[in-house]
Amino acid sequence: MSEPNPLDQALSLQAQPDGSWLGATSPVYANMVGPFGGVSAAQVLQAVWSHPQRLGEPVALTVNYCAVLADGPFTVVAQPLRTNRSTQHWQVQVLQEQQVVLSATVMTAARRDTWRADELAAPAAPPPEQVPITPGPARVKWTSCYEMRFIEGALPTVWDGADGGSTRTLMWLRDKPLRALDFFALTAMADVFFPRIWRRRAVYVPVGTVTMSVYFHTSLARLQGLGCAYVLGQAKAQAFYNGYFDQSAQLWSEAGELLATSHQMVYYKE
Amino acid sequence: MSEPNPLDQALSLQAQPDGSWLGATSPVYANMVGPFGGVSAAQVLQAVWSHPQRLGEPVALTVNYCAVLADGPFTVVAQPLRTNRSTQHWQVQVLQEQQVVLSATVMTAARRDTWRADELAAPAAPPPEQVPITPGPARVKWTSCYEMRFIEGALPTVWDGADGGSTRTLMWLRDKPLRALDFFALTAMADVFFPRIWRRRAVYVPVGTVTMSVYFHTSLARLQGLGCAYVLGQAKAQAFYNGYFDQSAQLWSEAGELLATSHQMVYYKE
Repeated sequence: MSEPNPLDQALSLQAQPDGSWLGATSPVYANMVGPFGGVSAAQVLQAVWSHPQRLGEPVALTVNYCAVLADGPFTVVAQPLRTNRSTQHWQVQVLQEQQVVLSATVMTAARRDTWRADELAAPAAPPPEQVPITPGPARVKWTSCYEMRFIEGALPTVWDGADGGSTRTLMWLRDKPLRALDFFALTAMADVFFPRIWRRRAVYVPVGTVTMSVYFHTSLARLQGLGCAYVLGQAKAQAFYNGYFDQSAQLWSEAGELLATSHQMVYYKE
Repeated sequence: MSEPNPLDQALSLQAQPDGSWLGATSPVYANMVGPFGGVSAAQVLQAVWSHPQRLGEPVALTVNYCAVLADGPFTVVAQPLRTNRSTQHWQVQVLQEQQVVLSATVMTAARRDTWRADELAAPAAPPPEQVPITPGPARVKWTSCYEMRFIEGALPTVWDGADGGSTRTLMWLRDKPLRALDFFALTAMADVFFPRIWRRRAVYVPVGTVTMSVYFHTSLARLQGLGCAYVLGQAKAQAFYNGYFDQSAQLWSEAGELLATSHQMVYYKE
């Protein structure tokens, strides 16, 4: 019998009698301090996805990282705040020791076929197989859960404080071990880019995401059609100001469909 | 005695004995249906800003538009979920008839001076005085509360369904009547761009923002130093898919400082 995929293991939530869910941080997705925020966001989404009252599929998700999660169990409370004819707005809290550690909102909708267009085309990139795999730093466990093939903007190898001017990263990525794409995988991938300030400055400063939003431009059926294909990920910062910088990110399919766009605000120390 | 500025009137919230706030939609900021979402977002921020427990200044704000606000009074409940040494996470709900109409999260922080950089430079633009003012459509009242000088991408004048390929809008804008810049003005301005799908397709389709985030890259002191200056606003869509498109926006000062970045997801009908 094969092991369940580590992301599916992390996404396993136990329904509690009061309607909340019991989950746990996943050791394989450990970050330098606390868990990888992308998987925490996927766990938030799972609580909505598994809820008996859910309407449709996720359109937008915002997760606020209020405090570092301690290794171990947590409780997720997902509450539908407003259900309309074709849309639903959710409030989600993740608690440890009765304290809020993550606060989130999720918007789901029953979508209809409409006019469609990707305005932001996928950047030119060589095929994934032609781009070498860069292993993540050993001290950051969760990076071993992804195959990352950097076309531009890998983690600096020389930390010399040379301001490179640009923070763009472009890479092919997929889950390791392989796992079929779905909304959970995309959510986690939105947070897979190492902090833009390290890329820009080649200076190691402490960082932590304080809020992240993911907007979905696809359906589960289309994602299932992609299987375990690569995703082309791009991330850039727009501004760094007194302790916080932003990151805009895009995730395209191999065929160039824009699957998700994401934004986050990140604390940095100096 | 001069009239208070309409934005300040809209931002007037009355503290209630239970800690909530009583506010009202503002007729001068009326949209085609319900109020202009930018001012609703500013009202959400006001509830946090006015709260006796607030720590620092706003860093990030996310507002979910759960239902159309009815014209008239509403209640705002702002709750600090987690207060850390220098950061604070808030949950805000706006209610009408005991139903949630807006659900929001706000993150505030006491910022420290750090390394700073604007990575996304302001696009080239002629000085505001050299760009003519375009009055907004008469049926959308709130547009008369802004002076808009479009450099690129004004509202289509011919609705012929010609797909223009691009959704970029670039404009100078400021409050009308003039009002000194602050976090509230910036929050409202983040939502000032007409729907990108109208720009792209030159087809009038029903739309409505479902969620918007604003990230601040400035301080109140710096905003106060700008006074009533123009703001350079840019907006673009990245993807349109089955009923929802996204919008990324930036707001720069006249001197080219990136003051705020914003993202929203917008429903469209066909």
